[in-house]
Amino acid sequence: MTTPETETDEAARHRVKMEKRKALQDAEIASKTVEKGLLLVHTGTGKGKSTAAFGLALRVLGHGGRVGVVQFIKSRPTGEKTALAVFGDRVVWHTAGEGFTWETQDKARDMAACRGAWDTAKALMTDPAFGLVILDELNIALRYDYLPVEEVVATLAARRRDLHVAVTGRNAKPALVEAADLVTDMTMVKHHFKAGVKTQAGIEY
Amino acid sequence: MTTPETETDEAARHRVKMEKRKALQDAEIASKTVEKGLLLVHTGTGKGKSTAAFGLALRVLGHGGRVGVVQFIKSRPTGEKTALAVFGDRVVWHTAGEGFTWETQDKARDMAACRGAWDTAKALMTDPAFGLVILDELNIALRYDYLPVEEVVATLAARRRDLHVAVTGRNAKPALVEAADLVTDMTMVKHHFKAGVKTQAGIEY
Repeated sequence: MTTPETETDEAARHRVKMEKRKALQDAEIASKTVEKGLLLVHTGTGKGKSTAAFGLALRVLGHGGRVGVVQFIKSRPTGEKTALAVFGDRVVWHTAGEGFTWETQDKARDMAACRGAWDTAKALMTDPAFGLVILDELNIALRYDYLPVEEVVATLAARRRDLHVAVTGRNAKPALVEAADLVTDMTMVKHHFKAGVKTQAGIEY
Repeated sequence: MTTPETETDEAARHRVKMEKRKALQDAEIASKTVEKGLLLVHTGTGKGKSTAAFGLALRVLGHGGRVGVVQFIKSRPTGEKTALAVFGDRVVWHTAGEGFTWETQDKARDMAACRGAWDTAKALMTDPAFGLVILDELNIALRYDYLPVEEVVATLAARRRDLHVAVTGRNAKPALVEAADLVTDMTMVKHHFKAGVKTQAGIEY
């Protein structure tokens, strides 16, 4: 590589460091050869679990894919649903629940809603039209044992090879974490609710 | 509350537990009264930092807002950019960098690119048309001291009161964390790259 005569020592050190780093990066990229649909899990108590799943939806849509969304628990109308409606039938959206369980206070109804959502999820995952299926707050349904984790993990493991699935919600069960390709724990470092800031459109929904 | 005579003991216990939980939730929600634009920071080594910022963009767009995006480092064409183009001029997108620094190996050029990106960011933040400005990978520019953190934090602190700003990237500087309303550390629990899976459209970009 040609080095301009005016290059300072510091710039030269930077260049050499970055050349080494690029070589490492290139080698690492070359070592990855597998292409497959991923099972992604977003868990933890911090903000960003569902939000990152909807960001993934944008990526898949941008590459021409279709996206299925099943909301297991939440029912509040959300900005992301309104926004994604602009993509027409490239996004299919099902909301199962009638709110979190401390809203309904009726376990039998919640369990039936989760079972219905899971049936919808299975249908979407079978349809080759979809590149990504988001199972939003499925972890909550699993945590309350509204759905058996063994059945859910077995179905996810048997899905078609090129389908990405993103599962969100706190307290992901160990069996799901074990089965996943990618697990991110959205760890709360600091939260505005603690400073008395209320739920706001565009941020929480 | 009326209790059906057929309610089982377990269902009754569940209902009481959830009633208590709902009361706590309601009290907590009532205690939050502040409405303000938030400074959100997504950091950590896990996946989901930029993705969650673009998910926020969807929320803001769904509520009728406009979104500005400044990419400080990355330059690869991304699915989210293509997808967000469907919203026309409601999304303004600037990409400053010519790739990560280990691609360019030219510190002076990288610094100039970051300065240009920051000037664009400041212009977007001044424009009342925007509800959210995403400063993607700004943390990387700060980490390499391509921009002075004091200047950046002071500008962010002085922004208009109703503007949300999301800053992404690993290694968020302590001064930025201190200034932020919400900080999430996307903590890597498990990553598919370690299993030899390559970078894929719809997942990484």
